[in-house]
Amino acid sequence: MLKYQQIAEEMERYIEDHGLKQGSKLPVIEALMKQYGVSKSTIIKTLELLEKKGIIFQVRGSGIFVRRQNRKGYISLLSNQGFKKDLEDYVLTSKIIELEVRKPTEEVSINLNMDLNEDVYYVKRIRYINGQTLCLEESWYNKSIITYLNKEIVSESIFHYITEGLGLKVGFSDVYLQVDKLNEEEAAFLGLEKDAPKLLVESIFHLTNGQPFDFSKVTYNYQQSQFFIQANSHFF
Amino acid sequence: MLKYQQIAEEMERYIEDHGLKQGSKLPVIEALMKQYGVSKSTIIKTLELLEKKGIIFQVRGSGIFVRRQNRKGYISLLSNQGFKKDLEDYVLTSKIIELEVRKPTEEVSINLNMDLNEDVYYVKRIRYINGQTLCLEESWYNKSIITYLNKEIVSESIFHYITEGLGLKVGFSDVYLQVDKLNEEEAAFLGLEKDAPKLLVESIFHLTNGQPFDFSKVTYNYQQSQFFIQANSHFF
Repeated sequence: MLKYQQIAEEMERYIEDHGLKQGSKLPVIEALMKQYGVSKSTIIKTLELLEKKGIIFQVRGSGIFVRRQNRKGYISLLSNQGFKKDLEDYVLTSKIIELEVRKPTEEVSINLNMDLNEDVYYVKRIRYINGQTLCLEESWYNKSIITYLNKEIVSESIFHYITEGLGLKVGFSDVYLQVDKLNEEEAAFLGLEKDAPKLLVESIFHLTNGQPFDFSKVTYNYQQSQFFIQANSHFF
Repeated sequence: MLKYQQIAEEMERYIEDHGLKQGSKLPVIEALMKQYGVSKSTIIKTLELLEKKGIIFQVRGSGIFVRRQNRKGYISLLSNQGFKKDLEDYVLTSKIIELEVRKPTEEVSINLNMDLNEDVYYVKRIRYINGQTLCLEESWYNKSIITYLNKEIVSESIFHYITEGLGLKVGFSDVYLQVDKLNEEEAAFLGLEKDAPKLLVESIFHLTNGQPFDFSKVTYNYQQSQFFIQANSHFF
């Protein structure tokens, strides 16, 4: 981890630990330089990262302020830290339904940009929040990139394993959302009635070199589906 | 518009017009400097902006590549350009149900950080896509910031009016998603049966100085609800 990333983590933890609210003013750049004993350019990089992550916002000529979402119990839709950070007060568990090496379907091969005769790891699991079903998750991993998975890995955060265990760098993801009704199989897995609402989230994760390695389809229990996203100015 | 933003728009249009696919390699920085007659730092700013917007990705030591979502008919959930850019082949219309100045409810006053005795513009409209209901939209605008609205403005893109007409700068937004069942009133407006699935998207838009000015609740017709989001590495 680089110095500016480390400082960003420290500042994030400080905001968290002190329960600073949206709009709280943070020290000016010069004070931060002093505090962390680093150059101006390092602090500027730190602040850019925190801004991208939606932790702060900067107002020219006025200062640096805390940015926070104010609602409890919402899951960050785009961060993939195994939900843990946003749901610290909740108990999350997984049940593995399937884990095997297979050939991709056409849909999977298109989304992972693979040939039909290459291998993928297929993982199907149910995730629980405080004992209630949160989602049914199916994922396909390009086996030439994610070379090894087992039950123990898959029962924890697969993302943590990919970044820490395999040392891969995740670059970006494309996320597709769709609302629909549960079919019979999904309803059974989630313990809901057929035709109940569902949120289907399809994600394609790419390495920093642009190669897709993970295609996943997650069907959420609508009773547990509260998400937040933070958007920055470049979207407007 | 600053030079780097202008070049970013030109490059985005170029990618669009030439139908470049995900992974297409773009010219190197030196070639772009020559092509646009600008400094290296300007091109770097351009590329940073395009990367944030999910138009390109950069691979260190390898080059600059096109990033694109590959599915048709999905609405960008976070961009607020009146859907137009993503749904060029579709006809979008609005029907205004209500437009009036009122006092905020407690929920609205919390989300807009206003007193209960201040004024808000309340706008309720139905939006149609190719003649079918897309969503039911309720918005509350802080009247001390959005000082004037009328039927003509509200029947078009309100965001365009806010940024171009009023010259306000939008900084960031917090977006909350929830899946649920339609109540009777919503079902009637959307032309669906009660208890059909719905996606509720609540957004709070802030100016660059952090002040919230728009709180909106949009209930989507699940039959028309396909969204995409592009996420960058800082989320992982």
